[in-house]
Amino acid sequence: MKGEHGLIAKLSQIFGTPPTQVVCGIGDDTAVIRPDKDFYLLWTIDSLIEGVHFDLTYTPLRQLGRKALAVNLSDIAAMGGEPQYALLALGWPPQRDLQGALELALGMQEMAQKFGTALIGGDTVGSPGGLTLSLTVWGRIKPADLLRRDQARAGDLIYVTGPLGQAASGLEIMRRRLELPEETKAPLLQAFLDPSPQVATGRVLAQHHLATSLIDLSDGVASDLYQICLQSKVGAVVEATQVPIPPQVIEVAIRIGKAPLDLALKGGEDYHLLFTASPGKKQDIQHCFQQADLPTPTCIGEIVPGAGVRLRWREEEMDISGTGFDHFPIPPP
Amino acid sequence: MKGEHGLIAKLSQIFGTPPTQVVCGIGDDTAVIRPDKDFYLLWTIDSLIEGVHFDLTYTPLRQLGRKALAVNLSDIAAMGGEPQYALLALGWPPQRDLQGALELALGMQEMAQKFGTALIGGDTVGSPGGLTLSLTVWGRIKPADLLRRDQARAGDLIYVTGPLGQAASGLEIMRRRLELPEETKAPLLQAFLDPSPQVATGRVLAQHHLATSLIDLSDGVASDLYQICLQSKVGAVVEATQVPIPPQVIEVAIRIGKAPLDLALKGGEDYHLLFTASPGKKQDIQHCFQQADLPTPTCIGEIVPGAGVRLRWREEEMDISGTGFDHFPIPPP
Repeated sequence: MKGEHGLIAKLSQIFGTPPTQVVCGIGDDTAVIRPDKDFYLLWTIDSLIEGVHFDLTYTPLRQLGRKALAVNLSDIAAMGGEPQYALLALGWPPQRDLQGALELALGMQEMAQKFGTALIGGDTVGSPGGLTLSLTVWGRIKPADLLRRDQARAGDLIYVTGPLGQAASGLEIMRRRLELPEETKAPLLQAFLDPSPQVATGRVLAQHHLATSLIDLSDGVASDLYQICLQSKVGAVVEATQVPIPPQVIEVAIRIGKAPLDLALKGGEDYHLLFTASPGKKQDIQHCFQQADLPTPTCIGEIVPGAGVRLRWREEEMDISGTGFDHFPIPPP
Repeated sequence: MKGEHGLIAKLSQIFGTPPTQVVCGIGDDTAVIRPDKDFYLLWTIDSLIEGVHFDLTYTPLRQLGRKALAVNLSDIAAMGGEPQYALLALGWPPQRDLQGALELALGMQEMAQKFGTALIGGDTVGSPGGLTLSLTVWGRIKPADLLRRDQARAGDLIYVTGPLGQAASGLEIMRRRLELPEETKAPLLQAFLDPSPQVATGRVLAQHHLATSLIDLSDGVASDLYQICLQSKVGAVVEATQVPIPPQVIEVAIRIGKAPLDLALKGGEDYHLLFTASPGKKQDIQHCFQQADLPTPTCIGEIVPGAGVRLRWREEEMDISGTGFDHFPIPPP
């Protein structure tokens, strides 16, 4: 088990078995609690740390504020939930102009309003070492609609709700200061700097009971699909030719000498959703997505018996399980 | 208005009016939401940042874990609530041994168990610049029992639930590496490193409707009582001779050439509770605290018409409004 998930497994032992009202606890990005019989409460926290999650030399504070809330809303979307409230813990470097903190807040409020979420409190502290942002969001969902990561079954199809690798390509453009035509750069930078949480898509999947499992693509397909495999005790095969890679991502991949599939499957932060669904739901999915004016999701492979995520290309298969971003990587022996 | 509260006021404008189910929003340490008619949910977030809130050269990780949860539980106690669940966002420096993160978690779990709170999830990220901890806690309270900061009335007496200045003295001992007898040092270091949230005391005040307003002493009486004055639109007079200052605090004050009252009223982090109560509740308070096996609180002054916090000593009065710790101090002109 790799560093980050190994750490979480150990933390889970220390913190023990949750109370019975807790439907879903440590190991997911969102906790699920049942305070009464009508609704589950969904509860998540995410931190963004300067120098790790963002670099202010190429991230305007307003967009950072939008993104900080977006990644939390995405955790709620990843269960099919409806976000409601947020608290912000802001660690602002005291030597910097407080006007910047307000820019950040304005971005956050734009995102909050767009998704019907109210930012209702929090904590402000000085953080001389750099900007830190922690947001906690809560949402709700009807118990029967809740989508989790542990119900994928062999034979299910695997879908993603948007093109892959755009955010990772955007990050490469900024890091390497790549010079590229505006029509190549713009959508990739936008995908990285200003991702849009797929709340509406999550709601459609949940309310129409279309999916067997659901996750948001924060660490990349290789890592996030692997989470579904681990928790559902199944394997997955991704068909290389079916992965939706936009031409701009291919352009960046060629430019930096990387395989486009690497950017698409191992780069994180696309914040589209990945879900699994019974093959019998194919028509329903198309219909419901059309009704809701959402782009048709792309089938990229199939859940199989066994374990791990394999990438199939022509006759060959390669294990890509969990090869996404890891905050605590353990070097190979 | 000083820096930190000025910032919060501006954030409050940006984030706008909260939805009607939000009973208490920005400006308090804890948000109050009414999801159904039987209970209010209390929701808080706090961040601790290395180099600002703690220094690992004199804070063992296990105690830091205990304290990180304690300060959040104290926010719930400050409304009379019962804490239930917590999420942890851990920013751990990847270059440090992960064993330390587990020590931290063990301390957190000790504190969680002591107060019947379940740590049920969160987020782990790498934080090369230093350890950051954000905890969000939720609790509950019956609507009729909720204690806030805006209901103090002129004529109310002001009480604190424990001795003051111990945590600030403990911090001075560590910062200045003061050599002092063990019996002086031990209780002060303990108060700073391992504070105990006054959950039981908050519950007694709330359930027996003893208080008109309540806050926890995180920033010091001068600052926290000033919050009550601001929100209740009243003033306060603190009697210097009634402030409970333990002999060890006086010893440290003399040693470092500070007034003991400064440590007691302007040093933060004691995490006792400060409450206001009608004079007619005096007998009830004594009785209920005795019944619950809690030490009798100390009356330190009185709420008066007007504004601001004044310290009275013999015939003189001095304005001490809001002179506690501020993360974003504005220098005097």
